[in-house]
Amino acid sequence: MELKSTNKAFGGEVRKYTHASTATGTDMTFTVYVPPAASLAKCPVIYYLSGLTCTDDNAVQKGGAFQACAELGCMMVFPDTSPRGDDVPDDDAYDLGKGAGFYVDATADPWAKNFKMYSYVTRELPALIESNLPAAPGLKSICGHSMGGHGALTIALKSPDAWASTSAFAPICNPTECPWGKKAFAAYGVDGAAHDATTLLKAAGAAVYPDILIDQGLDDQFLAEQLGVDAFEAAAKSVGQKVSIRKRAGFDHSYFFISSFMADHVKFHADALNKKAENALVDVAVTDDAALAEFAKTAGKPIT
Amino acid sequence: MELKSTNKAFGGEVRKYTHASTATGTDMTFTVYVPPAASLAKCPVIYYLSGLTCTDDNAVQKGGAFQACAELGCMMVFPDTSPRGDDVPDDDAYDLGKGAGFYVDATADPWAKNFKMYSYVTRELPALIESNLPAAPGLKSICGHSMGGHGALTIALKSPDAWASTSAFAPICNPTECPWGKKAFAAYGVDGAAHDATTLLKAAGAAVYPDILIDQGLDDQFLAEQLGVDAFEAAAKSVGQKVSIRKRAGFDHSYFFISSFMADHVKFHADALNKKAENALVDVAVTDDAALAEFAKTAGKPIT
Repeated sequence: MELKSTNKAFGGEVRKYTHASTATGTDMTFTVYVPPAASLAKCPVIYYLSGLTCTDDNAVQKGGAFQACAELGCMMVFPDTSPRGDDVPDDDAYDLGKGAGFYVDATADPWAKNFKMYSYVTRELPALIESNLPAAPGLKSICGHSMGGHGALTIALKSPDAWASTSAFAPICNPTECPWGKKAFAAYGVDGAAHDATTLLKAAGAAVYPDILIDQGLDDQFLAEQLGVDAFEAAAKSVGQKVSIRKRAGFDHSYFFISSFMADHVKFHADALNKKAENALVDVAVTDDAALAEFAKTAGKPIT
Repeated sequence: MELKSTNKAFGGEVRKYTHASTATGTDMTFTVYVPPAASLAKCPVIYYLSGLTCTDDNAVQKGGAFQACAELGCMMVFPDTSPRGDDVPDDDAYDLGKGAGFYVDATADPWAKNFKMYSYVTRELPALIESNLPAAPGLKSICGHSMGGHGALTIALKSPDAWASTSAFAPICNPTECPWGKKAFAAYGVDGAAHDATTLLKAAGAAVYPDILIDQGLDDQFLAEQLGVDAFEAAAKSVGQKVSIRKRAGFDHSYFFISSFMADHVKFHADALNKKAENALVDVAVTDDAALAEFAKTAGKPIT
């Protein structure tokens, strides 16, 4: 990992890194917020997946997440939305190719060589973060916006043991039934049902998480045609999955919407991560004070 | 005024307007955050002046001010940093011409015709805001960053009756003694002493405001050569002006720095604005309940 820049924010640090990615075969860039608590203990990590056309910069600059991360002792990781570089295939449309990885592993040419964002976000990046930064191993949650909300929900639903919690802002909930998803899955050669939050939840047939948090603006210009939140809500009801969908009058699809509710999402994940850390503590031999102390250190409990 | 866009944020609205400006002879663009309290009463207004190269967008998107504005019932106005348009003269350098108005009225050609940012920010824009938006007349404060911190401090020091308070992030405190200021004042044909916060404070010879709030990062790449905060601090001490200068270890000149302390500045101004409103209340006949109620309505006290 090569550190490209660092900026102090709310007592912690915003760090931008690049690294050679095995998954994508390219250099990848990500930004991470390291909270002040990281100077004392390893911290739980929230992954934030961005939407179409974004890089790792957009939510970092406009998302307004860092005060909550600092106060709650959470690291936050912002991956790019696709591989980049002159050798990476692209498309003139904003919703395919660079900036539009859709968090899947492409199998169709010309995309198959580099567009492996599912493998990158679920395996390579967390391993990199946990090896190189003060991140508590295995203590991670995932959220995102729009295409990134699709990524967060599907990734979390596919591997509930890997994530403490998931949430989304205006996610693409049912991509097999909307223009963005149909186009991307067809081009990338992906089985849409395996990457559709609504389909995955129906297939699970039961609650996967204690709760899933979704904020959705009712003046969102993409709500009717692309997002499918009602389909997800119906699927959740049918299988008994609690979903706290907060429908927000007057809000649109922008970062002004995201930043208005970002602190709530950080809190939602911090609570789930702390609970997971506490539950894990119970599994540690309670008579072994040294082991307990070591675990408490690595579990990244917020400073109190 | 023509409304170009509106986005809901933290219960209020981010609105971008353009209007034909008498001061600059061009169309001007500004953005304003209208807090939810504005639906009930006229609100006090905080003007935020941005730094070199910025438009009205930068601090709106990255400044992180709106939660505090919403909670404290303050409107916040973000002017552009210069006139714009194909007919407006410019310079290849980033620190002269478009994006570099320095909040002065130019007298030298080719700048004299359009570069009247002092008149625009101090007279035309507040009149426009108070006539067209739910702003409490005369209840206004001013802050800014870098070149905009220079603008805020000088404008406030020149007209203490017009502003309830002033604050700045990493302001150019002594522009007659730094490369940015010397270059701009010479090109624009401006008497630097009349637009230099340090000089103005010395000339005042006494405290002008109860307190002036300044945040300054100690890893700011412009601190040594351009900002002159020590000169301002010394001038303040010599005349008995209280200045709360908070020197922040590790922070730089970026919006990550600004956003980390923005809520403090909004609170600082909200307190001063409320005090000014309360003091004004004392001048209203206290036996006239109807007049008091009317004043309380227009004075934009935050919802409690």
